[in-house]
Amino acid sequence: MREPISDFYAVIPAGGIGSRLWPLSRADAPKFLHDLTGSGQSLLRDTWDRIEPLAGHDRIAVVTGRAHRAAVEAQLPGIPDRNVFLESEPRESAAAIGLAAAILHRREPDVIIGSFSADHVIRSTRKFEFAVRDAVEVARQGFIVTIGITPTEPAVGFGYIKQGEELDVDGVREASLVERFVEKPDLATAKTYYEDRSYLWNAGMFISRADVLLAELERHQPALHAGLLELAEAWDDRDRRGAVVDRVWPALPKIAIDYAVAEPAAEGGRLAVVPGHFDWDDVGDFASLTKLILNGRKNDLAVLGPSARVLSDAASGILVSQTSRVISLVGVQDIVVVDTPDALLVTTIEHAQRVKGVVESLKLNGRGDVL
Amino acid sequence: MREPISDFYAVIPAGGIGSRLWPLSRADAPKFLHDLTGSGQSLLRDTWDRIEPLAGHDRIAVVTGRAHRAAVEAQLPGIPDRNVFLESEPRESAAAIGLAAAILHRREPDVIIGSFSADHVIRSTRKFEFAVRDAVEVARQGFIVTIGITPTEPAVGFGYIKQGEELDVDGVREASLVERFVEKPDLATAKTYYEDRSYLWNAGMFISRADVLLAELERHQPALHAGLLELAEAWDDRDRRGAVVDRVWPALPKIAIDYAVAEPAAEGGRLAVVPGHFDWDDVGDFASLTKLILNGRKNDLAVLGPSARVLSDAASGILVSQTSRVISLVGVQDIVVVDTPDALLVTTIEHAQRVKGVVESLKLNGRGDVL
Repeated sequence: MREPISDFYAVIPAGGIGSRLWPLSRADAPKFLHDLTGSGQSLLRDTWDRIEPLAGHDRIAVVTGRAHRAAVEAQLPGIPDRNVFLESEPRESAAAIGLAAAILHRREPDVIIGSFSADHVIRSTRKFEFAVRDAVEVARQGFIVTIGITPTEPAVGFGYIKQGEELDVDGVREASLVERFVEKPDLATAKTYYEDRSYLWNAGMFISRADVLLAELERHQPALHAGLLELAEAWDDRDRRGAVVDRVWPALPKIAIDYAVAEPAAEGGRLAVVPGHFDWDDVGDFASLTKLILNGRKNDLAVLGPSARVLSDAASGILVSQTSRVISLVGVQDIVVVDTPDALLVTTIEHAQRVKGVVESLKLNGRGDVL
Repeated sequence: MREPISDFYAVIPAGGIGSRLWPLSRADAPKFLHDLTGSGQSLLRDTWDRIEPLAGHDRIAVVTGRAHRAAVEAQLPGIPDRNVFLESEPRESAAAIGLAAAILHRREPDVIIGSFSADHVIRSTRKFEFAVRDAVEVARQGFIVTIGITPTEPAVGFGYIKQGEELDVDGVREASLVERFVEKPDLATAKTYYEDRSYLWNAGMFISRADVLLAELERHQPALHAGLLELAEAWDDRDRRGAVVDRVWPALPKIAIDYAVAEPAAEGGRLAVVPGHFDWDDVGDFASLTKLILNGRKNDLAVLGPSARVLSDAASGILVSQTSRVISLVGVQDIVVVDTPDALLVTTIEHAQRVKGVVESLKLNGRGDVL
């Protein structure tokens, strides 16, 4: 085991609900609090465990909503209070990661930060660690660095990163500039990307010096940058923090870090990518969750939750059970059944992406109580 | 409105659970206690209402299990105590109907009885009434009479009755001898029956003089007949009934009235059939229930239970909801979803018949609590 990286701080934005995993994921039980892999612990805890050898126990910050504070602290017992950054309301990823960058930079001007989603799944921890260590070395050169996953199939559910000019950084096996980002492609395009080999999946991981990230934000999102500095300046003063957060945070621009930082930095030749040769999934919907659980098994039924009460006959797909009911699935193929105490979803793997629409309809129908 | 038939007594065997409608139908909530038509009342009550104009309020007997006594009396308030015949355990239809025949014959030697299942659906009450009145006239001639439904499609889910020689009975529009009964056919055979026009659906309705029915039972099921007479002899003596029931009933042969009476009577030329030109369904499974509720509408979702909490998008089939949960069905075709507090079934219209197998598996798995 190598030592943690001494000037590195990990940031875990734990914000997204995971609407396409409704009714499993909810506002009060977001995706990152669930055990979706059968590991026996939440995705948030898995993320923490994966990062701890790189950053050290006391150098992992979590940015999350006030409502999730107790749940997060229960998942991460012993996390220092100073490493829990609470949002008064969701303001998207640029604000969340930018806040962490601003606070940590104020505490430690030369710090290198790495942000890692709280609800992604990575199993090959060793390869992940290699990639992050390489990314940190590239970040030392003044780049913002992302880790792009080497595709294992022509996926249409992820964005892609086109690798550009190679970078030669001491002790780093592979790194290059990012030529451009591309949004989720159609299947034909995804196939050309997959064949091409110079495209990687965009896994939304960013590693950079905090000052470099803040400079990039200042260049493209000056209002956001100014607000974040004001927040950071007051943050460690318990008497002032609350009032400043209440005033400044809700007025911050809502923008994803991809648009606020990554794309403009790529255009300016300041974004690098280190290929990650490990399995990775953002488990964005029930199709992806099914694949993850079945792990290559075809025509089988993935069961999440106690399975003793399930009676399945010629059924495939996924069953998520959060109740003590007897559940019987008969002759249903590629089905998605999510059984929770107050909501039931029945759909198919094919229609997994439409679940987000259900959530929107329920919102319109005044059923926020089950969201 | 015509007067009730003065020497007629209706018998409603209310026994079957309706296993293929699990988990809606249960041992403690059998099919006949459910409102499957949206009429606002149970099938049992619908049956009673259909029969009352023919038999009169005080001349309808119900044969049911001891466990269902309270539920039956709640459905049929004011039913005279003497008209509730309680079985100590299920012994099939020949015992149930035979018991009623034996008791009623003892009370009223010339009585004509008609037995009508508690859980079938008939909407055209007027045509039903015509058919029963005709059947009673034919029964006066000493025949056991069944009402056979004129098929509206080449159904494979019902047994058929082949009409034989026409009978000429005063005041009766149509009647004939039964040539033979045939079990549920395959589709090709069903099509020939449907074209042929001399085949009717076997709806399990039997009308005959009580003494004629008992004589038929005596001829083919002497042990059953002897037991029933012993029960009838003690029945109206409150001091003796209990002991005799406990001793005799559990030892009675278990056999369906079709095999014990109808088929041998048909072979002997003693079974007549009156065609019923009305809609009829035994609502045997969720496919049949869906058809009944959709009433010809294609690609639609039948909903049984409060529908306000259902969010469906491109879904067809049937949803039965007995909980207060929000239920969302997305992109599932010909689906069957039955949502109850302690059990959930998800299958398809195509596999509706396999639900009985689920019930059997649950029995084997020691889950009688949800059956």
